[in-house]
Amino acid sequence: MSALFDLNTWSHTRLAEVEAALGAWVTADAPQGVDHGAPAELVDAMRYAVLDGGKRLRPLLVLAAHEAVCPLRERAATYTAALRAACAVELIHAYSLVHDDMPCMDNDVLRRGKPTVHVQFGEASALLAGDALQALAFELLTPLDDSVAPATQARLCGLLARAAGSAGMAGGQAIDLASVGMPLSESQLREMHELKTGALLQGSVLMGACCGAPGPAALAALENYGAAIGLAFQVVDDILDVTADSATLGKTAGKDADNDKPTYVSLMGLDASQAYAQALLSQACTALDASGLPDTQALRALADMVVNRAC
Amino acid sequence: MSALFDLNTWSHTRLAEVEAALGAWVTADAPQGVDHGAPAELVDAMRYAVLDGGKRLRPLLVLAAHEAVCPLRERAATYTAALRAACAVELIHAYSLVHDDMPCMDNDVLRRGKPTVHVQFGEASALLAGDALQALAFELLTPLDDSVAPATQARLCGLLARAAGSAGMAGGQAIDLASVGMPLSESQLREMHELKTGALLQGSVLMGACCGAPGPAALAALENYGAAIGLAFQVVDDILDVTADSATLGKTAGKDADNDKPTYVSLMGLDASQAYAQALLSQACTALDASGLPDTQALRALADMVVNRAC
Repeated sequence: MSALFDLNTWSHTRLAEVEAALGAWVTADAPQGVDHGAPAELVDAMRYAVLDGGKRLRPLLVLAAHEAVCPLRERAATYTAALRAACAVELIHAYSLVHDDMPCMDNDVLRRGKPTVHVQFGEASALLAGDALQALAFELLTPLDDSVAPATQARLCGLLARAAGSAGMAGGQAIDLASVGMPLSESQLREMHELKTGALLQGSVLMGACCGAPGPAALAALENYGAAIGLAFQVVDDILDVTADSATLGKTAGKDADNDKPTYVSLMGLDASQAYAQALLSQACTALDASGLPDTQALRALADMVVNRAC
Repeated sequence: MSALFDLNTWSHTRLAEVEAALGAWVTADAPQGVDHGAPAELVDAMRYAVLDGGKRLRPLLVLAAHEAVCPLRERAATYTAALRAACAVELIHAYSLVHDDMPCMDNDVLRRGKPTVHVQFGEASALLAGDALQALAFELLTPLDDSVAPATQARLCGLLARAAGSAGMAGGQAIDLASVGMPLSESQLREMHELKTGALLQGSVLMGACCGAPGPAALAALENYGAAIGLAFQVVDDILDVTADSATLGKTAGKDADNDKPTYVSLMGLDASQAYAQALLSQACTALDASGLPDTQALRALADMVVNRAC
């Protein structure tokens, strides 16, 4: 993307703040106004699932969308909301991986280069840790102090719940589950991925935006941007599943083909999948052009990273 | 309780509205503003888990607390919020049962007189249905129209997330899991149950209350009431596990003893457990006396039902 914008530099400080916030918020400490803290054994599994791993793409999308929507001079006032939103979407993502890896789902033993949560802590603890991470996401969005405006809290909870739920991520996983070994058309495959992966990626963009006060045109453009990168992410995931090895991915490669899962590569071939990913990147950039927002460099660079990543 | 108040009559109309609302809201329809509906196979499992079963104690507590806090002439304006809160806590309760029954947890096959969700739909679908029900609870609390004030939406989401999460229900389940076969003191057992069952029951009372505008004294009294009935519920559950049969309970009786789980009955004996339940009922009523609220008959009758129920 722009030669003047360095994504690594931009990401570096933001990732440090996200990691610190996750470390501080996924704890056994009793939240204000609650008599009890969380039991240490549960929190250990939750921290294991969340900390020290992952690209943190969703938190970066939240923060980049927040910056795109908020002029610099207004950013500080809503930064707490954006940071909480960034951590909340990551908790939802982390819980979905914990449950998705369980024996009754994908039965995977390796994730981010470590044993999966159920391998490390047992299935029951993995189930509960995932459940508690989902709840914690909504706790983060509803701080008991006045650091996030109530209307913003409500809007963030609504966006996250819909992105995570039956018409979003969980719904996409259910379609995925039902479609193993079934021939899917390209439109059915797209619909599955729009829900399974796309909804939370698009939700991240919208949550970041709604920490500010975007106009309807900007919001619609960001919705299109989010849809394009959400789909691109999955197309690239399917490509990497056949082109990368497990060590690079930090998870088991070739898993989808082994499980006879429909993928973009199995449906349209490798070359066409790669061309499709590039077309979606163009779509994302066109949407940003149409947004009328001045500061979309980070969103552009993140779209580029989604499509041209090696793992 | 008061001879002039008939809980059955009071419950009848409210339960009908809760059932109708749950039936309408747990659906495959695309919510406004979302491109996709939920896949039918997932929604089938969600509806199976939620509809046609259960005492609906938590929804009734929400509605009773709302009525206690809101004078009749002000009640209609916040009724939508209370009904949504009532359904949201029931969805959280339902999801916890689905996950709790799974083979890696309690491995139970019978619930509310029907095969459990994983027996009926498979483990993966049960896992996803539970996950989606938790998200749906927060969707219900954040309607996209203006039927619930944003500040109320935020407060309800915050209360529900904390009641359900690692310092609430999920935390209590983790302690429960870790304590099988372990000797627990009465205070350890109480702490476990305050989280596992008490937090969501108390949360129901507080959510109903916060749909209105209770003063600090009334809110503190309702918090005490909720704590007392939350604990009483579990003491009675332990009593019924040894005194009732599976057909009456609609779930497998004697399960706790078989699993070598610590219970009030195993710790203090049957007679002392029954006396303790009655003492907690007195505590709950004393809290209502101290609340200064005029219309607490339904809350009183529900406390009585919790302690003196047969199943």
